[in-house]
Amino acid sequence: MSLNSSPNDKFPETTSSKLSFGHCQECATPLQQQRPPGDDRLRLVCPNCNKVFYDNPKLVVGCVPISKDQNRVLLGKRAYPPIGKWTIPAGFLESGETAHQGAAREAWEEMRAELDLQPLTILAMYNVIPAKQVQILYRSTLLNEAHVQPGPEMQEVRMFEWNQIPWDQLAFPTVEWALRYSLHNLNNKHLQPQLKSK
Amino acid sequence: MSLNSSPNDKFPETTSSKLSFGHCQECATPLQQQRPPGDDRLRLVCPNCNKVFYDNPKLVVGCVPISKDQNRVLLGKRAYPPIGKWTIPAGFLESGETAHQGAAREAWEEMRAELDLQPLTILAMYNVIPAKQVQILYRSTLLNEAHVQPGPEMQEVRMFEWNQIPWDQLAFPTVEWALRYSLHNLNNKHLQPQLKSK
Repeated sequence: MSLNSSPNDKFPETTSSKLSFGHCQECATPLQQQRPPGDDRLRLVCPNCNKVFYDNPKLVVGCVPISKDQNRVLLGKRAYPPIGKWTIPAGFLESGETAHQGAAREAWEEMRAELDLQPLTILAMYNVIPAKQVQILYRSTLLNEAHVQPGPEMQEVRMFEWNQIPWDQLAFPTVEWALRYSLHNLNNKHLQPQLKSK
Repeated sequence: MSLNSSPNDKFPETTSSKLSFGHCQECATPLQQQRPPGDDRLRLVCPNCNKVFYDNPKLVVGCVPISKDQNRVLLGKRAYPPIGKWTIPAGFLESGETAHQGAAREAWEEMRAELDLQPLTILAMYNVIPAKQVQILYRSTLLNEAHVQPGPEMQEVRMFEWNQIPWDQLAFPTVEWALRYSLHNLNNKHLQPQLKSK
C-alpha cells in the first residue's frame, strides 16, 4: 500500500454526505457541505465561523438486572414506541458520567431499580448502525427486587423467571440477544462481552 | 425508595446545565435552557421548533497493533497536539460503521496499518470524562509491518520492542494503560476488557 492511496479507497464515505443541511449553532449562518482541510469526507461546515458539525453515533448504556438468586430478570413494559413491548433498562449516556454510572442511572429512572454492578463486567457491545447507536450493556445484580416500580417511560415492571420471558414481545433484537447471552453465562467468571451488529 | 423520589436525588445533574447557548441548527432561532417534558435535566431547546439539542459523549475507537510474533507494537508520533508524543491509532467513530470497522479505518488513516481484528476482542474501555469521550480499544495483529507509513496526522510511525516503548513520551494516560494491559495479556485467550475511568 502506498501513501498515495486515498483512505477513501479502503474506507469509502458512509452516511456523512446524507446529512440534512441547517444553521450554525454558533452564529446561525446557513451550513454548507464541505470537505474540511485534512478531512477525507464531506461535513456540514459553517462558511462564516468555520465550525464543523460532525454526525457521530451515540452511546446507549444499559444492563440486564438479575435477581440475587439468579432465577429472575427485571423487564419493563414500554410506555413509548414500541409501546407495550418488554425491554431492559437502557438509554443515552450523558456527559459527566461514566458508562456504568449511566447504566445505573437509567435502571433507576426507568424501573426504580438499584443495582450492584461489581465486579464491573461488560455483558455485551452491540453496533446498531441504522439507529446510529453503540450499546454497552453491563452485568448487574438487582438489589431491591421487592421495590422496583415503573418510571415515567414504563407502563409496568415485572420480574420474569427465565422460562417465562415473553420472547415474542421484546422491544428490540438487542434485548433478546442480551437476555439469552446472560442466561447462558450466569456463572461464567471469565465472561467476554458478546459483540454483535445490526 | 418511592416513586416520588426524584431521579435527581440519586443521580444529580452533571454538566448539561453548563452548556453554552447558541442557535437552533434547524431554524436558527436562539436556543434557551429548558427542562423538556418528561426530562429531569436542563437542555438546550429551540423555543420555535422545540428541537432539543443533547450534549452526549462521543465514542473513540482504536486498537493496539501488535506484530505477528507479538514482540513489537506500532506507535505513531503525533503531528497535532500533543505534538511529538507517541500514540496508538484511534479516533472518533463515524456514522455508518461498526466500532471495529472504525478502529480499522483509523489505523489505516493514521498509520497505513492493515489489521487482523479476529477473534474480535475488546482490549479496553476507558471513560475520559473531561474530554466527554468513551474509548473502545481492540486487540489487533498488524498484517503489513514492513509497509506502515505516517498518515497526515502523524510525523512518524515506528515499531517498538516492548522494552523500548517511550513510556515518558506517550500522548495520553489511556495509551499507557492500553499498552501495559496488552503486554500483560498477550497470550490470554479469555481476555476481559480493562475498564478504567479518568
